[in-house]
Amino acid sequence: MIKPSLFSLRLKVRDYECDLQGIVNNANYQHYTEHTRHEFLLSRGISFARMHAEGYDPVVARMTMHFKQPLRSGDEFVSTINLRKEGIKYIFLQNIYRAADEQLVFTSEVTTVVLYHGKLHDCTLLRDLFASELSS
Amino acid sequence: MIKPSLFSLRLKVRDYECDLQGIVNNANYQHYTEHTRHEFLLSRGISFARMHAEGYDPVVARMTMHFKQPLRSGDEFVSTINLRKEGIKYIFLQNIYRAADEQLVFTSEVTTVVLYHGKLHDCTLLRDLFASELSS
Amino acid sequence: MIKPSLFSLRLKVRDYECDLQGIVNNANYQHYTEHTRHEFLLSRGISFARMHAEGYDPVVARMTMHFKQPLRSGDEFVSTINLRKEGIKYIFLQNIYRAADEQLVFTSEVTTVVLYHGKLHDCTLLRDLFASELSS
Amino acid sequence: MIKPSLFSLRLKVRDYECDLQGIVNNANYQHYTEHTRHEFLLSRGISFARMHAEGYDPVVARMTMHFKQPLRSGDEFVSTINLRKEGIKYIFLQNIYRAADEQLVFTSEVTTVVLYHGKLHDCTLLRDLFASELSS
Repeated sequence: MIKPSLFSLRLKVRDYECDLQGIVNNANYQHYTEHTRHEFLLSRGISFARMHAEGYDPVVARMTMHFKQPLRSGDEFVSTINLRKEGIKYIFLQNIYRAADEQLVFTSEVTTVVLYHGKLHDCTLLRDLFASELSS
Repeated sequence: MIKPSLFSLRLKVRDYECDLQGIVNNANYQHYTEHTRHEFLLSRGISFARMHAEGYDPVVARMTMHFKQPLRSGDEFVSTINLRKEGIKYIFLQNIYRAADEQLVFTSEVTTVVLYHGKLHDCTLLRDLFASELSS
Repeated sequence: MIKPSLFSLRLKVRDYECDLQGIVNNANYQHYTEHTRHEFLLSRGISFARMHAEGYDPVVARMTMHFKQPLRSGDEFVSTINLRKEGIKYIFLQNIYRAADEQLVFTSEVTTVVLYHGKLHDCTLLRDLFASELSS
Repeated sequence: MIKPSLFSLRLKVRDYECDLQGIVNNANYQHYTEHTRHEFLLSRGISFARMHAEGYDPVVARMTMHFKQPLRSGDEFVSTINLRKEGIKYIFLQNIYRAADEQLVFTSEVTTVVLYHGKLHDCTLLRDLFASELSS
């Protein structure tokens, strides 16, 4: 069952993402979660590319991933996001569910910080934006 | 303007597909065209993964690509397919258009053949399937 | 300073691995660590592709990564492996150091299990192979 | 037999580059050829990343590829470059040979132009650099 989330994105496995084991190569889950975070930001009016152009770079400091079941060629899936703030860190809780049976296939916790011209920064833009959405 | 095609797929650039020039890295166009061919086959009831499991491997023998304009972060695009058969070869004519202004950004001609257990094969499955769709 | 390890591999950043922030995209560290594990296995006479062909699939169940500093275009780096066994799990401790100054840029802990025809399996091949190398 | 070239690079297939057909996915040949061009430039003292930072962007305008034989897990290969200039275009002739038997597995012709702050530019840097190496 798909748990409630702040944002979700439905995607489909692309065959080139599968490796010689016939399943989605693990590194692609990192791609999926990154893409979901960027689409989440976009849905709130923030472009990752524009942030970079303006000197702000959100970066991942730490990431924990659990691979529960493999996605395969043809699978559609739902990638979800929840978010909490700890000090200057934004921690994204990101799950992936197979669409066909809503089985949880992947969970992750992604700890990010924002750099401003390369230095750690308490990005007020994101803080204000997420003020009402952050879990406590 | 988007030309008529047998099949089209609307996709969106993912930021991880952009390289340090800030544009979609060229190799991703090959991913886009492969994914579009596989979705085209699926739309006609053929799974690339199942073909492989049954001993049939469509492979690209030759590919010509023209990169006309770069896609960038945030761009949506339409990937189209037309098809013709020459002897045992299937030749896919694949264009990519930026969705916002329907500008042609990429064209390619992808010559494929089918291997059956590693040997060249005149795949009747595909031949029959595309009988009415092949341009002459 | 590069810590002692069971196996190490010297690699170089490829520009297509860098994203629009001008640094190596995070997902590539997963590629680097996977490639290092497979080369480590090969150095002990085990091919990942052959294992798959024989029904054995080592899979990653859990992975924790710390991104300490970004690698950039032109950087060479050293990817190292240590290993411990916990029950049927093989846990790879994988670090990446920038070659120029031996700075630690990335650490990870990769928990793997072996599936035999899709089922959890206490792979004796790996157990015997690593008998003398496993840290306790 | 490996033909004479201006530059060559020996590389090894990484398992994550193989797809569910068990062979190197076609898009990776574009990665291999890009990486070889960038290493070729570096060997002549030119960094692709620095060119970008200074406003110069070499881009691929056209590319033709022939896939003759697939590379597989474990294969080492040699990626070679020759070069000719036609007007403001630099045309790279890039072959890939399997190292074990020196069989030609891939050939390509890569037509590039240089943009300076986004506009076509007859890059004298490259012209002077390659003056003695260009085939006529």
